[in-house]
Amino acid sequence: MKIQITETDLIQMEQRKRAHLINSVGGFKSICLIGTVDLKGQTNLAIFSSIVHIGSNPPLISFIMRPDSVERHTLANILEIGRYTINHLNESIYKQAHQTSARYPKETSEFDATGLSTEYKFNCKAPFVKQSNIQLEMEFKQRIDLTINSTIMIIGEIKNIYFPKDCLQEDGFLDIEKAGTVTCSGLDSYHLSTSLERLPYAKV
Amino acid sequence: MKIQITETDLIQMEQRKRAHLINSVGGFKSICLIGTVDLKGQTNLAIFSSIVHIGSNPPLISFIMRPDSVERHTLANILEIGRYTINHLNESIYKQAHQTSARYPKETSEFDATGLSTEYKFNCKAPFVKQSNIQLEMEFKQRIDLTINSTIMIIGEIKNIYFPKDCLQEDGFLDIEKAGTVTCSGLDSYHLSTSLERLPYAKV
Repeated sequence: MKIQITETDLIQMEQRKRAHLINSVGGFKSICLIGTVDLKGQTNLAIFSSIVHIGSNPPLISFIMRPDSVERHTLANILEIGRYTINHLNESIYKQAHQTSARYPKETSEFDATGLSTEYKFNCKAPFVKQSNIQLEMEFKQRIDLTINSTIMIIGEIKNIYFPKDCLQEDGFLDIEKAGTVTCSGLDSYHLSTSLERLPYAKV
Repeated sequence: MKIQITETDLIQMEQRKRAHLINSVGGFKSICLIGTVDLKGQTNLAIFSSIVHIGSNPPLISFIMRPDSVERHTLANILEIGRYTINHLNESIYKQAHQTSARYPKETSEFDATGLSTEYKFNCKAPFVKQSNIQLEMEFKQRIDLTINSTIMIIGEIKNIYFPKDCLQEDGFLDIEKAGTVTCSGLDSYHLSTSLERLPYAKV
């Protein structure tokens, strides 16, 4: 037997409770750290759970940010520098990653505040998270303002991918479970995964 | 030691291999079945792994669809009827859910083809998946054409939420792991979850 929560229930629900519920109902989410830097070299690290695949050719990934939150440092830096990094979480760093969501002032780097380490690769100005097993270098492509609720969608193109060498399978599938990537649900719940199986391409 | 895959490697990669890789690197994904119906009553069911939270007030969820794939039945139906359903997968139905990605002709309902059952609730014209433990009734709100690669973003508002009664926690968090919701990675890999923990709201 199922419980029903209606639109009216949602409207009348206390704000924080509704946020927990609505953030839970969409299913498990990709959770990553986005690393940026401003023109003065001040680094920033922020956690996002709205990363979504847009396309493979060109390789595009998007994420959603609120305009009125700590994440504006991320937005300002991306627009200034044009590059950013996406870094997977694992069991060793999810607590520090979560802590980056605290409202640190701009002059405090979340790297310093949480003890995560910056890592710089080749010509990428934006910092990677050294403790992350799967890291992406991204180039900013497009900002889309979602007028429906004033959130902002950022689309970026993947420029470089870094991952542990035993995780790539013959057909291109990257075994992120083997790399220890965690997933999240709601606003604050972290989970490991256990593979059921890979299924073949579906045919009629 | 990590492997690096560069932009040049990606461009030169065989198309299917690149699709597997790029679909893997964004982390674990929400995977759901979207149920729709057309004006003649012909039902459709399609699997999507691009569901993302847009906001809690109003409660908004989006997903991305390719314009040139089987999913156009989903789009046409959503635009015709204005309502659709989002249904979580669990271990009992993920194989049938995956099978809905085969290119069935419009006159074949994926419900019939895969053995999943329709369920109708109150005034919602769109069918739910009876075997799904967490079900959302959605109202179409906005279509955004992503010019960067011709994909389409659909934003909808949650009208009703249905879930097993022992899954809702005091603070609004819905325990989707307890409901048996599965997650996916890449194009075809299905996973169960194991909770690490819920973390408190982060403060400086």
